[in-house]
Amino acid sequence: MVKYQEAILDRTFAALADPTRRALLARLEGEDALSVSELARPFKMSLPAVMKHLDVLSDAGLIEKTKAGRTVTCKLNAGPMEEAMQWLIRYQRFWSGALDRLAALSGGR
Amino acid sequence: MVKYQEAILDRTFAALADPTRRALLARLEGEDALSVSELARPFKMSLPAVMKHLDVLSDAGLIEKTKAGRTVTCKLNAGPMEEAMQWLIRYQRFWSGALDRLAALSGGR
Repeated sequence: MVKYQEAILDRTFAALADPTRRALLARLEGEDALSVSELARPFKMSLPAVMKHLDVLSDAGLIEKTKAGRTVTCKLNAGPMEEAMQWLIRYQRFWSGALDRLAALSGGR
Repeated sequence: MVKYQEAILDRTFAALADPTRRALLARLEGEDALSVSELARPFKMSLPAVMKHLDVLSDAGLIEKTKAGRTVTCKLNAGPMEEAMQWLIRYQRFWSGALDRLAALSGGR
Protein backbone atom coordinates (compact mmCIF):
# COMPACT_ATOMS: atom_id res chain seq x y z
CA MET A 1 0.00 0.00 0.00
CA VAL A 2 2.79 2.39 0.92
CA LYS A 3 4.72 1.35 -2.21
CA TYR A 4 1.59 1.97 -4.27
CA GLN A 5 1.18 5.48 -2.85
CA GLU A 6 4.87 6.17 -3.43
CA ALA A 7 4.42 5.16 -7.08
CA ILE A 8 1.45 7.54 -7.41
CA LEU A 9 3.51 10.38 -5.94
CA ASP A 10 6.46 9.56 -8.23
CA ARG A 11 4.26 9.70 -11.33
CA THR A 12 2.27 12.75 -10.22
CA PHE A 13 5.28 14.92 -9.29
CA ALA A 14 7.16 13.82 -12.44
CA ALA A 15 4.14 14.69 -14.62
CA LEU A 16 3.90 18.14 -13.00
CA ALA A 17 7.62 18.89 -13.52
CA ASP A 18 7.10 20.32 -17.00
CA PRO A 19 5.67 23.74 -17.96
CA THR A 20 3.81 22.44 -21.03
CA ARG A 21 2.11 19.73 -19.01
CA ARG A 22 1.15 22.21 -16.29
CA ALA A 23 -0.23 24.56 -18.97
CA LEU A 24 -2.28 21.71 -20.48
CA LEU A 25 -3.78 20.95 -17.06
CA ALA A 26 -4.46 24.65 -16.49
CA ARG A 27 -6.41 24.83 -19.77
CA LEU A 28 -8.45 21.76 -18.84
CA GLU A 29 -9.19 23.33 -15.46
CA GLY A 30 -11.48 25.87 -17.13
CA GLU A 31 -13.23 23.46 -19.52
CA ASP A 32 -15.35 20.36 -19.26
CA ALA A 33 -13.32 18.59 -21.94
CA LEU A 34 -11.17 19.55 -24.94
CA SER A 35 -10.09 17.67 -28.04
CA VAL A 36 -6.39 17.01 -28.55
CA SER A 37 -6.24 19.48 -31.45
CA GLU A 38 -7.96 22.22 -29.40
CA LEU A 39 -5.49 21.54 -26.58
CA ALA A 40 -2.51 21.66 -28.94
CA ARG A 41 -3.51 24.91 -30.70
CA PRO A 42 -1.90 27.49 -28.36
CA PHE A 43 1.44 25.66 -28.16
CA LYS A 44 4.38 26.35 -30.43
CA MET A 45 5.18 22.67 -30.80
CA SER A 46 4.16 19.84 -33.09
CA LEU A 47 0.97 17.87 -32.47
CA PRO A 48 2.97 14.65 -31.76
CA ALA A 49 5.01 16.54 -29.13
CA VAL A 50 1.82 17.70 -27.40
CA MET A 51 0.43 14.17 -27.64
CA LYS A 52 3.49 12.82 -25.84
CA HIS A 53 2.88 15.26 -22.99
CA LEU A 54 -0.79 14.19 -22.90
CA ASP A 55 0.36 10.55 -22.67
CA VAL A 56 2.48 11.37 -19.62
CA LEU A 57 -0.51 13.13 -18.01
CA SER A 58 -2.78 10.21 -18.88
CA ASP A 59 -0.30 7.63 -17.50
CA ALA A 60 -0.18 9.63 -14.26
CA GLY A 61 -3.99 9.55 -14.12
CA LEU A 62 -4.18 13.36 -14.32
CA ILE A 63 -6.33 13.37 -17.45
CA GLU A 64 -8.87 10.99 -18.93
CA LYS A 65 -8.92 10.42 -22.68
CA THR A 66 -12.06 9.43 -24.56
CA LYS A 67 -12.12 8.46 -28.22
CA ALA A 68 -15.22 9.10 -30.33
CA GLY A 69 -14.65 8.27 -33.98
CA ARG A 70 -11.42 10.05 -34.91
CA THR A 71 -11.59 12.61 -32.11
CA VAL A 72 -9.82 12.12 -28.81
CA THR A 73 -11.06 14.37 -26.02
CA CYS A 74 -9.32 14.98 -22.72
CA LYS A 75 -10.79 15.76 -19.33
CA LEU A 76 -9.00 16.81 -16.15
CA ASN A 77 -8.78 14.24 -13.36
CA ALA A 78 -7.37 16.09 -10.36
CA GLY A 79 -7.52 13.11 -7.95
CA PRO A 80 -3.78 12.30 -7.89
CA MET A 81 -3.01 15.96 -7.12
CA GLU A 82 -4.75 15.50 -3.80
CA GLU A 83 -2.13 12.89 -2.76
CA ALA A 84 0.62 15.28 -3.85
CA MET A 85 -0.90 18.09 -1.83
CA GLN A 86 -1.34 15.87 1.22
CA TRP A 87 2.36 15.07 1.01
CA LEU A 88 3.27 18.78 0.85
CA ILE A 89 0.91 19.84 3.64
CA ARG A 90 3.09 18.35 6.39
CA TYR A 91 5.80 20.88 5.48
CA GLN A 92 3.43 23.82 5.59
CA ARG A 93 4.38 24.71 9.17
CA PHE A 94 7.89 25.61 7.92
CA TRP A 95 6.79 28.43 5.69
CA SER A 96 3.87 29.56 7.86
CA GLY A 97 6.35 29.49 10.77
CA ALA A 98 8.65 31.77 8.79
CA LEU A 99 5.73 34.16 8.23
CA ASP A 100 4.87 34.10 11.94
CA ARG A 101 8.46 35.02 12.80
CA LEU A 102 8.40 37.87 10.29
CA ALA A 103 5.11 39.11 11.74
CA ALA A 104 6.55 38.90 15.27
CA LEU A 105 9.63 40.87 14.18
CA SER A 106 7.64 43.71 12.62
CA GLY A 107 5.21 43.68 15.56
CA GLY A 108 8.07 44.04 18.01
CA ARG A 109 9.24 47.40 16.67
CA MET B 1 9.21 36.52 -13.70
CA VAL B 2 6.71 33.92 -14.92
CA LYS B 3 9.57 31.99 -16.56
CA TYR B 4 11.48 32.12 -13.30
CA GLN B 5 8.52 30.74 -11.34
CA GLU B 6 8.03 28.03 -13.97
CA ALA B 7 11.68 27.01 -13.54
CA ILE B 8 11.22 26.81 -9.76
CA LEU B 9 8.16 24.60 -10.20
CA ASP B 10 9.99 22.39 -12.73
CA ARG B 11 12.87 21.82 -10.35
CA THR B 12 10.71 21.39 -7.25
CA PHE B 13 8.30 18.88 -8.77
CA ALA B 14 11.18 16.96 -10.41
CA ALA B 15 13.06 16.80 -7.10
CA LEU B 16 9.95 15.47 -5.33
CA ALA B 17 9.37 12.76 -7.97
CA ASP B 18 11.61 10.24 -6.24
CA PRO B 19 10.85 8.19 -3.09
CA THR B 20 14.42 8.41 -1.72
CA ARG B 21 14.45 12.19 -2.04
CA ARG B 22 11.03 12.44 -0.37
CA ALA B 23 12.29 10.18 2.44
CA LEU B 24 15.38 12.38 2.89
CA LEU B 25 13.18 15.47 3.21
CA ALA B 26 10.88 13.62 5.63
CA ARG B 27 13.87 12.82 7.87
CA LEU B 28 15.01 16.43 7.82
CA GLU B 29 11.50 17.55 8.72
CA GLY B 30 11.98 16.14 12.23
CA GLU B 31 15.52 17.43 12.81
CA ASP B 32 17.28 20.76 12.92
CA ALA B 33 20.11 19.46 10.73
CA LEU B 34 21.75 16.12 9.91
CA SER B 35 25.14 15.18 8.52
CA VAL B 36 25.27 13.44 5.15
CA SER B 37 26.38 10.17 6.80
CA GLU B 38 23.51 10.30 9.32
CA LEU B 39 21.10 10.95 6.46
CA ALA B 40 22.51 8.08 4.40
CA ARG B 41 22.46 5.48 7.23
CA PRO B 42 18.86 4.15 6.87
CA PHE B 43 19.11 3.74 3.09
CA LYS B 44 20.14 0.54 1.34
CA MET B 45 22.23 2.40 -1.20
CA SER B 46 25.79 3.64 -1.48
CA LEU B 47 26.85 6.95 0.05
CA PRO B 48 27.60 8.44 -3.42
CA ALA B 49 24.07 7.49 -4.54
CA VAL B 50 22.56 9.29 -1.53
CA MET B 51 24.84 12.26 -2.19
CA LYS B 52 23.52 12.52 -5.76
CA HIS B 53 19.98 12.71 -4.41
CA LEU B 54 21.07 15.38 -1.92
CA ASP B 55 22.59 17.35 -4.82
CA VAL B 56 19.25 17.29 -6.64
CA LEU B 57 17.49 18.52 -3.50
CA SER B 58 20.12 21.21 -2.99
CA ASP B 59 19.92 22.37 -6.64
CA ALA B 60 16.15 22.66 -6.19
CA GLY B 61 16.70 24.79 -3.07
CA LEU B 62 14.91 22.23 -0.88
CA ILE B 63 17.90 21.69 1.41
CA GLU B 64 20.82 23.85 2.53
CA LYS B 65 24.24 22.27 2.87
CA THR B 66 26.87 23.57 5.27
CA LYS B 67 30.44 22.33 5.40
CA ALA B 68 32.40 22.39 8.66
CA GLY B 69 35.78 20.71 8.37
CA ARG B 70 35.09 17.37 6.71
CA THR B 71 31.44 17.21 7.77
CA VAL B 72 28.63 18.36 5.49
CA THR B 73 25.33 18.97 7.28
CA CYS B 74 21.96 19.40 5.61
CA LYS B 75 18.98 21.43 6.70
CA LEU B 76 15.47 21.44 5.26
CA ASN B 77 14.43 24.52 3.28
CA ALA B 78 10.73 24.11 2.60
CA GLY B 79 10.27 27.45 0.78
CA PRO B 80 10.03 26.09 -2.79
CA MET B 81 7.35 23.63 -1.63
CA GLU B 82 5.10 26.60 -0.95
CA GLU B 83 5.15 27.53 -4.67
CA ALA B 84 4.33 23.90 -5.54
CA MET B 85 1.45 23.88 -3.11
CA GLN B 86 0.13 27.21 -4.40
CA TRP B 87 0.08 25.70 -7.87
CA LEU B 88 -1.85 22.64 -6.66
CA ILE B 89 -4.34 24.64 -4.57
CA ARG B 90 -6.24 25.94 -7.60
CA TYR B 91 -7.26 22.35 -8.41
CA GLN B 92 -8.49 21.67 -4.89
CA ARG B 93 -12.11 22.44 -5.77
CA PHE B 94 -12.11 19.37 -8.05
CA TRP B 95 -11.51 16.86 -5.31
CA SER B 96 -13.46 18.71 -2.64
CA GLY B 97 -16.28 19.03 -5.22
CA ALA B 98 -16.17 15.25 -5.68
CA LEU B 99 -16.51 14.80 -1.91
CA ASP B 100 -19.46 17.22 -1.80
CA ARG B 101 -21.22 15.23 -4.51
CA LEU B 102 -20.61 11.98 -2.62
CA ALA B 103 -21.99 13.57 0.56
CA ALA B 104 -25.04 14.84 -1.34
CA LEU B 105 -25.65 11.35 -2.76
CA SER B 106 -25.52 9.60 0.61
CA GLY B 107 -27.62 12.39 2.20
CA GLY B 108 -30.30 11.98 -0.47
CA ARG B 109 -31.19 8.40 0.49
